[in-house]
Amino acid sequence: MAKELPTRKEDYSLWYNELVKKADLAEHSDVRGCMVIKPYGYSIWEKMQQALDKMFKDTGHSNAYFPLFVPKSLFEAEEKNAEGFAKECAIVTHYRLKTDPQNKGKLIVDPEAKLDEELVVRPTSEAIIWSTYKKWIQSYRDLPILVNQWANVVRWEMRTRLFLRTAEFLWQEGHTAHATADEAVRETVQMLDVYADFAENFMALPVVKGRKSEGERFPGAVDTYCIEAMMQDGKALQAGTSHFLGQNFAKAFDVQFTNKEGKLGYVWGTSWGVSTRLMGALIMAHSDDDGLVLPPKLAPIHVVIVPIFRTDEELARISEKAQEIAAALRKQGFAVKFDNRDTHKPGFKFAEWELKGVPVRLAIGPRDMEAGTVEVARRDTKEKQVMKLDEVVEKIPALLDDIQTTIYARARTFRSEVTTEVNAYEEFKKVLNEKGGFLAAHWDGTPETEAAIKEETKATIRCIPLDAKEEAGVCIYSGKPSTRRVLFARAY
Amino acid sequence: MAKELPTRKEDYSLWYNELVKKADLAEHSDVRGCMVIKPYGYSIWEKMQQALDKMFKDTGHSNAYFPLFVPKSLFEAEEKNAEGFAKECAIVTHYRLKTDPQNKGKLIVDPEAKLDEELVVRPTSEAIIWSTYKKWIQSYRDLPILVNQWANVVRWEMRTRLFLRTAEFLWQEGHTAHATADEAVRETVQMLDVYADFAENFMALPVVKGRKSEGERFPGAVDTYCIEAMMQDGKALQAGTSHFLGQNFAKAFDVQFTNKEGKLGYVWGTSWGVSTRLMGALIMAHSDDDGLVLPPKLAPIHVVIVPIFRTDEELARISEKAQEIAAALRKQGFAVKFDNRDTHKPGFKFAEWELKGVPVRLAIGPRDMEAGTVEVARRDTKEKQVMKLDEVVEKIPALLDDIQTTIYARARTFRSEVTTEVNAYEEFKKVLNEKGGFLAAHWDGTPETEAAIKEETKATIRCIPLDAKEEAGVCIYSGKPSTRRVLFARAY
Repeated sequence: MAKELPTRKEDYSLWYNELVKKADLAEHSDVRGCMVIKPYGYSIWEKMQQALDKMFKDTGHSNAYFPLFVPKSLFEAEEKNAEGFAKECAIVTHYRLKTDPQNKGKLIVDPEAKLDEELVVRPTSEAIIWSTYKKWIQSYRDLPILVNQWANVVRWEMRTRLFLRTAEFLWQEGHTAHATADEAVRETVQMLDVYADFAENFMALPVVKGRKSEGERFPGAVDTYCIEAMMQDGKALQAGTSHFLGQNFAKAFDVQFTNKEGKLGYVWGTSWGVSTRLMGALIMAHSDDDGLVLPPKLAPIHVVIVPIFRTDEELARISEKAQEIAAALRKQGFAVKFDNRDTHKPGFKFAEWELKGVPVRLAIGPRDMEAGTVEVARRDTKEKQVMKLDEVVEKIPALLDDIQTTIYARARTFRSEVTTEVNAYEEFKKVLNEKGGFLAAHWDGTPETEAAIKEETKATIRCIPLDAKEEAGVCIYSGKPSTRRVLFARAY
Repeated sequence: MAKELPTRKEDYSLWYNELVKKADLAEHSDVRGCMVIKPYGYSIWEKMQQALDKMFKDTGHSNAYFPLFVPKSLFEAEEKNAEGFAKECAIVTHYRLKTDPQNKGKLIVDPEAKLDEELVVRPTSEAIIWSTYKKWIQSYRDLPILVNQWANVVRWEMRTRLFLRTAEFLWQEGHTAHATADEAVRETVQMLDVYADFAENFMALPVVKGRKSEGERFPGAVDTYCIEAMMQDGKALQAGTSHFLGQNFAKAFDVQFTNKEGKLGYVWGTSWGVSTRLMGALIMAHSDDDGLVLPPKLAPIHVVIVPIFRTDEELARISEKAQEIAAALRKQGFAVKFDNRDTHKPGFKFAEWELKGVPVRLAIGPRDMEAGTVEVARRDTKEKQVMKLDEVVEKIPALLDDIQTTIYARARTFRSEVTTEVNAYEEFKKVLNEKGGFLAAHWDGTPETEAAIKEETKATIRCIPLDAKEEAGVCIYSGKPSTRRVLFARAY
């Protein structure tokens, strides 16, 4: 089963597509560009949601729900935002189908049910939310508003890939409103930190926190912060963004408030989001040629127990022990699968659970039962060890912790290996083509240089790292002076 | 604040609308028929989701996610289903906006971005899901499929009311596939039981389990089961439905499987759903003229503590005690709000938390501190009692249990009072007009009689109760023989 995967070296892109399908994570639907997230894939997304949702609530946010549709007149109110999304949005124009008079049994759009005003299926919800905030906010006492929404959004992408770029995707979008610019910026940075914390500690994914260049900014934002991750093929992936919106949306929707001094002013805003794209990052960062490698904190199944048996009697004896171990682990909050199917051989099961990324596999056979032992295999390093049956329950929590740490460390090491400081454009192109990864280089700060480099090499400025040191240098492209390095990469 | 609510007697419908808005549950949006679910309302919905989700998983179901859009050709595949929803669905016809050449800054639909095939925004997902199941099912080994989805759906209702009937609403929809009719029927009934369990034990809402008459069946179902609840104005509300789909969708989408004997046959299906409509039921079943009454199991805040103070020094002393109580209660899993705002008087706070339905209110003043007491008010009965400060923490869990039970018992008593056996049509109309409620009456089983009664009285057959006894009688309308009573009511 797992053998059917192409290797990463052969064809990284095909490996990813096949892995997503074979591990039962997602598949293409009959709707152009839209995916079906299958139960196993969705259960990983649910674990992500739970962890993030808790972090949002711990930082004072509440969930709410706003409409799927944005009337065109609201959509166009914030000009840059509208311009940024107009080219890729689904438009509802009618509200009824009727029987085709020329072909009974078929339906056609009823021309008499045309909407007076077209509705845009939300590509993002700033417009509909700020038109609502106008009703909620009069005074400084109504601020801050700290709201998050879990929702589906639609962006009519022409080239789609499962999880990474789909016409419809699932995400959360936080939308906050504040009395001062300072407070809004603090919120923007706080949520970036939440995302980085989640990526590193749950996804085992090291990320660089930074700011986007003007060219890569969210349409309608004053400043876009992001976390950038590195995939195994040397391409970067933007894993989350947090935007300081300034007063742009407040002005577009006339959201003003009276401050403590009785003075009227526009509200300051932020928005921030992560999406099912994180699933793509999780898969691509850690998995290997045999399948998924999941960090235990996001694994739907932590431990799978595979019995090795020839007779029903052997299975019965092993089952008893396996159920005992499973029960003890479940009591500690771990998800355990006892795979007692008699329709498949152990080898098949091993491959299947490897493909699905279960962090720990226990195999118990008749000889183990006699010797009081169990074979413990970890998915990340493929190491096997023999443990005593009566010690396995107490040893597994530490093993899972170690797997979480190891996966993170491995990704971090890899990222270091593919992060290169370059000081000249020829070197930049050479490293980019031969090795890929992050290229830390000086840039003159102009959109023109950024665009020229992108045009010539397909590398974009992933971010201006928040921790970038002041360092005098010259732009690799223009030779003009620069005060800090930025990170370039080809990206998903 | 609470005083601003109209009473239920004055205008039940206005009372409901005002309560939903004033208690910060939901409001109308700028999109026709779509609502904004505000944070407080959404937090109740989240508690519903959590409880239901656990019940679904405990009965073996997994969550997944299917596309928002249904291509028209798939939508029309199951004829009755298509016919049932065609008249009220939002249709996406284009995928791009462009700048209006006559009016820069305005956008128009780009006529060149017309879709080859229109997309229906899902009003329900049978079509898109069964077109997917076709790919998932070949053999009996692929069955059963037990999948649930939490999603938004759109039905273009012309007359909308917050939570009860909105163009977009949130729901869960279970879609299962089985090898035999028997197993599918068992699943249908099991999920009806889950819904009834949830309604009674979480929402404190007594429900009648039953089957719909043919006229009220889900389009495309062979049999529709439902739970029906009674609101305080004597109108019924359908709180959940579970459908046995027979092989209708399997045939429409050609989903066949090979059984154990190697024989090919169509798969059997079910679908079942509850929606944000439950919020409407929850509000209308229990609340009073002062505001919401929430069953503790779904209350976002279980206990609110209001300090009564004149000086900062008094507040500080009370705060210390209040925080101690709050911490001890939180440790037991209760949500506690300490309302120490100095901008509002206690009377205002009392009214506000009554409006929001917090089950238990503690008020602590300086005299309480001296006497070591606290005033405990329960929201449901408005009873107040004085407890010792050092006993309050241990007494609150039982008090909350009692509130949950009392709310349920009250709703059950009310329902009994407004359920009437009637044996003649004149009596039927009299009771319906003077008292409302459920009318248990004999019906001849024909759609004609059902339609005539509906036309003449606006009462519909809510359900044929599962526990209806065999009883010889004659139809109140036609005088034809009948073997059991069915429940009529005017309904939301």
